[in-house]
Amino acid sequence: MARLKLKLQLYCGDEIAMGPGKADLLEAIAREGSISAAGRAMGMSYRRAWLLVDTMNRCFNAPLVETHPGGGKQAGAKLTQEGEAALAAYKALSEQVEHGVAGAGHQALEAAIRREPLPARS
Amino acid sequence: MARLKLKLQLYCGDEIAMGPGKADLLEAIAREGSISAAGRAMGMSYRRAWLLVDTMNRCFNAPLVETHPGGGKQAGAKLTQEGEAALAAYKALSEQVEHGVAGAGHQALEAAIRREPLPARS
Repeated sequence: MARLKLKLQLYCGDEIAMGPGKADLLEAIAREGSISAAGRAMGMSYRRAWLLVDTMNRCFNAPLVETHPGGGKQAGAKLTQEGEAALAAYKALSEQVEHGVAGAGHQALEAAIRREPLPARS
Repeated sequence: MARLKLKLQLYCGDEIAMGPGKADLLEAIAREGSISAAGRAMGMSYRRAWLLVDTMNRCFNAPLVETHPGGGKQAGAKLTQEGEAALAAYKALSEQVEHGVAGAGHQALEAAIRREPLPARS
């Protein structure tokens, strides 16, 4: 049975304000309490995690993540009220969309796809 | 207003059997009549276009694209009946999903996103 994967992305200009990876990062920050620990838990560098947070903070009306005074790599971080709300709204929307993917089109397409691909020709 | 973008991907094992890029490539092959011309029209190399076609052909029960005898880079290509059906089903499913994305979650999230991001700190 083919697995269906939905990626829901919200753009702000040419930048992605919110998507699956950013939502996962927000969850990790809420759980881990810092950007560096969240990045580590997701297997990404501190720089990459920081850039994703910076993009979100620049794209939303209010920052989604706030770092404790002092800043830098060791500083703690947490979601703002707006961050909690944006994450909850994104997750609700994603579930809503996934539920919308029932129907004939889906079944027909899945039925036409193999369980595993044939091997690539070498 | 934030733009919403949905990517619908169907997996076969670890490979993507069908997604936005592969659907666009199928449309281009149907229009251009060859893999190389379709790749050119999409700004991708012949090798990249060929690999995407090969993945689709290995993931579906029947090949989606057939090349005319003789093969190679100059050979013509067209969608099989299964290719036409898979493309139509994917497009129908994508539209269905996009229509499913109305509702409160969407509005609240869009309202929280700026029209353009704030400039990045240099």
